[in-house]
Amino acid sequence: MEELLFDTPVAVVDLDKLEKNIEQMAALCRARGIALRPHIKSHKIPEIALAQLKAGAIGITAAKLGEAEEMARAGVKDIFIANQITGPAKLKRLAALAAGIKLSVGVDSWRNARELDQIARETGLVLDVLVEIDTGLHRCGLEPGPQVIELAKKLRERPSLHLKGIFTHAGHAYGARGPAQVEEIGRDEGQVMAQLARQLKAAGTPVEVVSVGSTPTARHAAQVPGVTELRPGNYVFYDAIQLALGVAAVGNCALTVRATVISRPAPDRAVIDAGSKALNLDKGAHGASLVRGFGIVLGRPGLTIERLSEEHGILALDPAEILDVGDVVEIIPNHACTVINLFDTVLGTRKGKAAEVLRVAARGKSR
Amino acid sequence: MEELLFDTPVAVVDLDKLEKNIEQMAALCRARGIALRPHIKSHKIPEIALAQLKAGAIGITAAKLGEAEEMARAGVKDIFIANQITGPAKLKRLAALAAGIKLSVGVDSWRNARELDQIARETGLVLDVLVEIDTGLHRCGLEPGPQVIELAKKLRERPSLHLKGIFTHAGHAYGARGPAQVEEIGRDEGQVMAQLARQLKAAGTPVEVVSVGSTPTARHAAQVPGVTELRPGNYVFYDAIQLALGVAAVGNCALTVRATVISRPAPDRAVIDAGSKALNLDKGAHGASLVRGFGIVLGRPGLTIERLSEEHGILALDPAEILDVGDVVEIIPNHACTVINLFDTVLGTRKGKAAEVLRVAARGKSR
Repeated sequence: MEELLFDTPVAVVDLDKLEKNIEQMAALCRARGIALRPHIKSHKIPEIALAQLKAGAIGITAAKLGEAEEMARAGVKDIFIANQITGPAKLKRLAALAAGIKLSVGVDSWRNARELDQIARETGLVLDVLVEIDTGLHRCGLEPGPQVIELAKKLRERPSLHLKGIFTHAGHAYGARGPAQVEEIGRDEGQVMAQLARQLKAAGTPVEVVSVGSTPTARHAAQVPGVTELRPGNYVFYDAIQLALGVAAVGNCALTVRATVISRPAPDRAVIDAGSKALNLDKGAHGASLVRGFGIVLGRPGLTIERLSEEHGILALDPAEILDVGDVVEIIPNHACTVINLFDTVLGTRKGKAAEVLRVAARGKSR
Repeated sequence: MEELLFDTPVAVVDLDKLEKNIEQMAALCRARGIALRPHIKSHKIPEIALAQLKAGAIGITAAKLGEAEEMARAGVKDIFIANQITGPAKLKRLAALAAGIKLSVGVDSWRNARELDQIARETGLVLDVLVEIDTGLHRCGLEPGPQVIELAKKLRERPSLHLKGIFTHAGHAYGARGPAQVEEIGRDEGQVMAQLARQLKAAGTPVEVVSVGSTPTARHAAQVPGVTELRPGNYVFYDAIQLALGVAAVGNCALTVRATVISRPAPDRAVIDAGSKALNLDKGAHGASLVRGFGIVLGRPGLTIERLSEEHGILALDPAEILDVGDVVEIIPNHACTVINLFDTVLGTRKGKAAEVLRVAARGKSR
């Protein structure tokens, strides 16, 4: 343990802040009577998923089958894969997983629905599905409208599939120009989904679950009547992009990367041992560039992480800054979810002291 | 094995192309009478390092101590860490590694040199060091000039340190506007280093090794008399950034990422199961933006990987393209070296058929 503490680059999680973040989102959902199903792609750590469940989450969300398998192995019993699963190898794994836990999966095409139906029939399962809706991110999902009603109708005709509801991810909120626009996108996300659910019901399709959510939009979408479930992920940690969107304050940020100055080649330049293989190149999700540099150096406003190569971070210094080889800096990364995916373990701390080492068990589980 | 083949996203290495790339660089060095010490950060796979040695490399280069440890475990006996190693925990590991193999390490400050000297004295070692020179990347390293002569002189006064020579990395070649500028930077890199070596010798400091190299500049720097060693890394795979620099052709690219179409939500849009957690966000090293999109879809010029979120790649389609859910595409990534770091294993193929699974043993070894 001692060695890890001083060996950089290291991903550090402030466990007190983490627990506070987990509790605050749970409290928001309790207050609104909405189910919380946090997305674990942000942390990929079973212990954190279990803490989220303990705090009141009804289950978890995963992006990939491999993540879901890893979480099931750790004892999570209710998982939604908010993605399309296709192809024989993955469908076989999906069915095996569905046999052991309460599993649901996204669908946004009839072609994929038929694959899901077939594997469910072959394995004697009834597979829970949710139709993915595009509320503005323009990634996967059907646009709200008659095509959703039609797909829902066809899904209901298949006894091996159980249509639970609809889901969306308003990830375009990460392209917002500020908190007001984030709020607008969040409310719109909730309203579009609630209205679509009413239309589906009017067309004879029961809609048990209306699931929305991203960390920026969660609190706004939660205000909309008819929304039944939130799926934020990043809120366990927050990061510099969330700060830029006005979603959190520095004091909420639970994940940092600790790095060491390895070179001071010029008065206005220092180099740390964390590059893009520790901090990643994210400047703002989905193409936006919200932030200055590649992370916030805590307590050192005169330092800017100006460039990253793979294993080097190049810092620009205000002339007044004192920084020498061997000095350790602590960085709030731009995007916590992709940083986590670069580390096998994270160091859990309490009040700045090492408390435990957590394994990022679902790291790299992109299949 | 069969399952892996169809399960995407998967990193695929064409072993025939890989071997050809390894042999071509070895032949270039043989022809020039220059030592080859390839950088393994690009592949992080012991079997590939051993193949490079078998083809004539005199040793390998690593960016991090953890990478070097992993390669030593696999039987590599001569490793240069082209980086500054600082701090008690790492220096202890460095000494342990140096006791078992032929190890050399970079240095660019007197402060760091004293640390190296101390651990060498404490453990009874003589540590081989090379002074890092900044030939234009402006990352680590001393600018060529009297400060190098001075540091070299001080290093030679320490009996526990053995000054082997000087090294540089002209990574600013990745910011070049085209092949002509790449060539200019490469020749300049070699000439600056050769001249500095002459100055050092004139000042009484023997210079055994004058080490340069990046994949783009390697062939140009190798033309300069006085250069003794090349350290290219990426050439084992090449990638879309190398193509943009005119360094390689599509047929040389040995690493691809295979992905599956999971959604076809609009006529001009498809979504694949490879996002930034499989392809990374690189658009060109060191801040340049050399390429269109986030990789080249092989054989499909009508497809552009326009956006990446963590687990989704969003493709823009020419209207004439036919692409459906379940279709598999093969992508030359923008930057092979960071893609490799996202996968635990890669699938080795020969003539399109699965041949072996290679473990990316040094993946994530950023400490």
